[in-house]
Amino acid sequence: MPTREEVTNKIQDEKRSRGLSWNKIAEGIGPGSPILYTAALLGQMTLTKSEAENAAKLLGLSEAEAAILTESPNRGSLTTLPPTDPLIYRFYELMQTYGTTWKALIEEEFGDGIMSAIDFEMQIEREPNVKGDRVKIGMSGKFLPYKRY
Amino acid sequence: MPTREEVTNKIQDEKRSRGLSWNKIAEGIGPGSPILYTAALLGQMTLTKSEAENAAKLLGLSEAEAAILTESPNRGSLTTLPPTDPLIYRFYELMQTYGTTWKALIEEEFGDGIMSAIDFEMQIEREPNVKGDRVKIGMSGKFLPYKRY
Amino acid sequence: MPTREEVTNKIQDEKRSRGLSWNKIAEGIGPGSPILYTAALLGQMTLTKSEAENAAKLLGLSEAEAAILTESPNRGSLTTLPPTDPLIYRFYELMQTYGTTWKALIEEEFGDGIMSAIDFEMQIEREPNVKGDRVKIGMSGKFLPYKRY
Amino acid sequence: MPTREEVTNKIQDEKRSRGLSWNKIAEGIGPGSPILYTAALLGQMTLTKSEAENAAKLLGLSEAEAAILTESPNRGSLTTLPPTDPLIYRFYELMQTYGTTWKALIEEEFGDGIMSAIDFEMQIEREPNVKGDRVKIGMSGKFLPYKRY
Amino acid sequence: MPTREEVTNKIQDEKRSRGLSWNKIAEGIGPGSPILYTAALLGQMTLTKSEAENAAKLLGLSEAEAAILTESPNRGSLTTLPPTDPLIYRFYELMQTYGTTWKALIEEEFGDGIMSAIDFEMQIEREPNVKGDRVKIGMSGKFLPYKRY
Amino acid sequence: MPTREEVTNKIQDEKRSRGLSWNKIAEGIGPGSPILYTAALLGQMTLTKSEAENAAKLLGLSEAEAAILTESPNRGSLTTLPPTDPLIYRFYELMQTYGTTWKALIEEEFGDGIMSAIDFEMQIEREPNVKGDRVKIGMSGKFLPYKRY
Amino acid sequence: MPTREEVTNKIQDEKRSRGLSWNKIAEGIGPGSPILYTAALLGQMTLTKSEAENAAKLLGLSEAEAAILTESPNRGSLTTLPPTDPLIYRFYELMQTYGTTWKALIEEEFGDGIMSAIDFEMQIEREPNVKGDRVKIGMSGKFLPYKRY
Amino acid sequence: MPTREEVTNKIQDEKRSRGLSWNKIAEGIGPGSPILYTAALLGQMTLTKSEAENAAKLLGLSEAEAAILTESPNRGSLTTLPPTDPLIYRFYELMQTYGTTWKALIEEEFGDGIMSAIDFEMQIEREPNVKGDRVKIGMSGKFLPYKRY
Amino acid sequence: MPTREEVTNKIQDEKRSRGLSWNKIAEGIGPGSPILYTAALLGQMTLTKSEAENAAKLLGLSEAEAAILTESPNRGSLTTLPPTDPLIYRFYELMQTYGTTWKALIEEEFGDGIMSAIDFEMQIEREPNVKGDRVKIGMSGKFLPYKRY
Amino acid sequence: MPTREEVTNKIQDEKRSRGLSWNKIAEGIGPGSPILYTAALLGQMTLTKSEAENAAKLLGLSEAEAAILTESPNRGSLTTLPPTDPLIYRFYELMQTYGTTWKALIEEEFGDGIMSAIDFEMQIEREPNVKGDRVKIGMSGKFLPYKRY
Repeated sequence: MPTREEVTNKIQDEKRSRGLSWNKIAEGIGPGSPILYTAALLGQMTLTKSEAENAAKLLGLSEAEAAILTESPNRGSLTTLPPTDPLIYRFYELMQTYGTTWKALIEEEFGDGIMSAIDFEMQIEREPNVKGDRVKIGMSGKFLPYKRY
Repeated sequence: MPTREEVTNKIQDEKRSRGLSWNKIAEGIGPGSPILYTAALLGQMTLTKSEAENAAKLLGLSEAEAAILTESPNRGSLTTLPPTDPLIYRFYELMQTYGTTWKALIEEEFGDGIMSAIDFEMQIEREPNVKGDRVKIGMSGKFLPYKRY
Repeated sequence: MPTREEVTNKIQDEKRSRGLSWNKIAEGIGPGSPILYTAALLGQMTLTKSEAENAAKLLGLSEAEAAILTESPNRGSLTTLPPTDPLIYRFYELMQTYGTTWKALIEEEFGDGIMSAIDFEMQIEREPNVKGDRVKIGMSGKFLPYKRY
Repeated sequence: MPTREEVTNKIQDEKRSRGLSWNKIAEGIGPGSPILYTAALLGQMTLTKSEAENAAKLLGLSEAEAAILTESPNRGSLTTLPPTDPLIYRFYELMQTYGTTWKALIEEEFGDGIMSAIDFEMQIEREPNVKGDRVKIGMSGKFLPYKRY
Repeated sequence: MPTREEVTNKIQDEKRSRGLSWNKIAEGIGPGSPILYTAALLGQMTLTKSEAENAAKLLGLSEAEAAILTESPNRGSLTTLPPTDPLIYRFYELMQTYGTTWKALIEEEFGDGIMSAIDFEMQIEREPNVKGDRVKIGMSGKFLPYKRY
Repeated sequence: MPTREEVTNKIQDEKRSRGLSWNKIAEGIGPGSPILYTAALLGQMTLTKSEAENAAKLLGLSEAEAAILTESPNRGSLTTLPPTDPLIYRFYELMQTYGTTWKALIEEEFGDGIMSAIDFEMQIEREPNVKGDRVKIGMSGKFLPYKRY
Repeated sequence: MPTREEVTNKIQDEKRSRGLSWNKIAEGIGPGSPILYTAALLGQMTLTKSEAENAAKLLGLSEAEAAILTESPNRGSLTTLPPTDPLIYRFYELMQTYGTTWKALIEEEFGDGIMSAIDFEMQIEREPNVKGDRVKIGMSGKFLPYKRY
Repeated sequence: MPTREEVTNKIQDEKRSRGLSWNKIAEGIGPGSPILYTAALLGQMTLTKSEAENAAKLLGLSEAEAAILTESPNRGSLTTLPPTDPLIYRFYELMQTYGTTWKALIEEEFGDGIMSAIDFEMQIEREPNVKGDRVKIGMSGKFLPYKRY
Repeated sequence: MPTREEVTNKIQDEKRSRGLSWNKIAEGIGPGSPILYTAALLGQMTLTKSEAENAAKLLGLSEAEAAILTESPNRGSLTTLPPTDPLIYRFYELMQTYGTTWKALIEEEFGDGIMSAIDFEMQIEREPNVKGDRVKIGMSGKFLPYKRY
Repeated sequence: MPTREEVTNKIQDEKRSRGLSWNKIAEGIGPGSPILYTAALLGQMTLTKSEAENAAKLLGLSEAEAAILTESPNRGSLTTLPPTDPLIYRFYELMQTYGTTWKALIEEEFGDGIMSAIDFEMQIEREPNVKGDRVKIGMSGKFLPYKRY
């Protein structure tokens, strides 16, 4: 029985040898977000049963491997913290620079609570720019106020 | 001569005792982003000379204190990592969950490189929603390809 | 202007010199949970304006100190992790022993998601027992399913 | 001879391929708590000899594997601390927020000592709620006063 | 109002300037163990009200300072771990060398459970020896079996 | 050629499949302490050549495996610190609570120096008690004064 | 399908058994910098398709292995930090000694921003010297000013 | 008597209130490198007696403060590692990306040894560039071969 | 009452303002090793009563301060590990490079045991050399064999 | 192709099964120091080509394995820091106790700089003593003054 990590590795191998892109795979899985689907294929989110079947067809996964994609993974995609990869580190740096600002402004607008990382969605797009294209990221998380009791 | 940290503390005190909000202060500082201005007041970004003078008037800062706001700070707003405050932690959690996905999708779209955290801007807004309003965050960072040499 | 930490220390001093208990103070603050109120007085939760006024009367706090109790604190009550105090460590140990079990059983019952630590409440009671009384703790947190998008 | 970790992995595989749930397995093991049984199957608690035999029948374990389930494990189910998985992290966050409150209120009620994590039991239930069902957790641990000598 | 740490420091100062020893102080506090009393004076255990009064007389403590000695301290006497002081480090080393042996032999004799560090007492004595005197330490902790439920 | 770790694992397997106890094995090895022998079998102490031969007979070890038991191991039995296993953690907790007390009382009695963890011996016994039997531990280490030069 | 790490190991083996040097290999790969090429072969940078083909010919790599060299690696070449190897540690020491000086002088010259580690290039040369030759390192990174918004 | 850290802080205050730049100060200290002088003023290098006198005149330091600048400091300018400030972090990132490459190429050219961080010098310059000016850094350290004995 | 740390700081101040060297001070304290005396003055070793009186005369210490020099300190002179100061780091590096070699050769010569760091002495001398003088260090520690019991 | 770590392990196996000592092996390798040779065999230093051939003959190494012994290793012999093995830990403890003393005395004698750990040599000998033989260690490292520029 493969582990989730082995399924993740197999998916990356199959993607490479079949010459697929993450966006191409996502289109084949269903109408959902390519971010959600990519995260699921990288071991951080779940697919529905039919999405997993579509993924299995595209990537040549066994039934058991597809089943694992529908299970809640043990989340946490980074083995070293702070992240050593520069692309991922920049997000860590943003948190270092803006962490207290996010807290100040979200609490000013919404009161005492948090932006949910569970009832959450995001998009990534290319933003054309003459001085060099930009990565545009949109996030939306439900505000959850602290329950008073 | 005050340290940057002392200026940051004084600003938070003055804001509280004058009954100001971060957005109100930002409006008084200039036409720039309230996020950039709040981050500067919290010791993570710089103000221009005239912005600092405006901030000084609003918050009763001395000339020396205003001058410090125009200097590059020693960045890093979080004293403990992972952050212990739940609002800030959720951003850390997003990085844990989506870190490898961000890398996969940004590299697929742009090639080998990073999203700049320096040539970067962001917005935070309230997104009204009947099931509960949402925090909407927009980020835009220049894509920087690795130089080949 | 006092910091939140100074207010927390003052409250502990006043409580001691006035011979008050946490439960007694909580009764004087309002009809809410003594756990919520104690956590607020220890710098981890917020009080409403009128609750803070009640607390200020009981404990001899200034207006500024009372105001600070209504602000979102920078949460995180433990300075060393794992906690060195044995009473607090036992909760850490429970997480070590039961962490994967909690994940397995909550996901089996509810699907992929988490128990909210924000939309959350708890009680602590004495459970009489001939072999030695027991500490009885009840927790209730809203289940939050991962949003699909 | 398998290690405890290998037995834990095999149990998870067998559970999946037999389409069993943790509660279903627990029913087949004995009248004890499904939490205790799940923790034992996940390598953190022990089963009695007859419970282990029942588990072996249900899950196709060898005699040696069943025997290992009756031995005291090397406890500690989490490989990274703070936990990276959001479901488990929320318990860590509760300890961060409420740690000093628990200490204050348990000592106020019981005196100097701890809630035992050894003479301890717990339950997890679904609490129906129109705004969204809740996870209800009950814990009961013997109070142990510090011995004076 | 002094903190526990300030009381601990004052006690060490008073002890030095009055030329007292820990054993001498312990004798004046009561009939209990000098280890328990020393640990209390060093901020790790509690004294009863009358013991604290005796300590106060011997060491010139104020009423408020004596009162603090009867409160449950925030335990944890070591600021760096592993301990840098060689005398304390040797105990850490014993745990490194004998940790798994203690587990094996205590479980073999008593079953699945622990030696309590709460229902616990200890003695330290000089053991005369021609090759050089030895430190003799006796510990006794109640065995606590894991509760089955 | 097996590593010490592989020998330790094999010993634990053989012990289990032969139904032996650590005390039984120790009796067969020689007249020395079962603690010393168990520690050696768990990879933390050495056996003499004839003790190792006895161990080999009892546990079915090869000549090469027996030889390894006579070599100085790379000591350190715990992979994570603080220890995650509750039985072992309690010793860590004792060091946290009593560390400074041990230092104060040993130095008061013996002067500036340490209790040796090398010229050291220990015993573990069951102490019958009507309220529940107790684990009794005796330690004896040579006092080593700091050399003056 | 090999992992990037396996490709890196194979390259080091092939280099050794074929008696090649990094500079020799770099010459065979293309006109680019031997530093960039060596970093790519050690798993930290990318090669173009034709560079990878040249590398494959020189080092006997398979097509799949060559393809992996053109992919963005998960960067981070050091497994322990601070680095234990003395040659690499000296760079860490320079950062310890000169870190705040670099910040002071670069900001004085360029304003608030950073030297890019992405739009970056470097050279290493031997600098002959009668007292012993020197390692001469040249670095050039684009200055990136913080975007104001 | 001031500590080195207090002298460093005073220097930064005096520089700011006198409107001096690091390069201006360096010119006034002597003909040496502004990098060496800045590092000394920031607490990481030493000045000669006459350089320290010059610095004292420029910055209004006392004789005792000047004397401290001639003493070997306790080196290490960064309080948190990895560095949280983005400008300094980029050097850490270069070490992460190029560490093994530096080792490979320096050893290939020079043999087994290190580049000295003690017999070392460096320069920082602006490199004009139409696409944006660049930070140019030159380092030169004596190669030290491992002594054979 | 001063703490040991305050006495250490005062000694360093007095040494500086009186223009004394460590060796000069040591000569005035007694016939013992300047290393032992310097370590005592830096808070890591003890002086005898008469040595402390001599030190007090030379350095203008009060009686209370002198008394503290005769007490066992809480040892550990380094606040960050690995040490950030290059001179001290080199000793750490030697331990990294030679640690397993020391173990192999000392055990080969002496059997299973350790070199005592308590019954220990050392010297530091200048070793003249035409290629540059050398630091010569001699250490001598009693071999302590593991006690068999 | 074996890794350096595999060669180190093989050497330890061959040494054991051939009944060789480190000193015996060193004699067969060449006239150099047994410390340097042992360190090389344990993966921390290099051998010359002819020394490696001698080592290969004595220990039955292949040509490829001998070649690896002549390459610069990735230095760092300790996997956990602080070291858990008591023999190695004592050196760490010496650094903790004497670190600041070494810095004070070496700088007093030599000026601002370090003792090289590269241009370095050492000896280990038995020092006979009626109270118990002693381990005598001699170290000699070139003093390197900080370059002024």
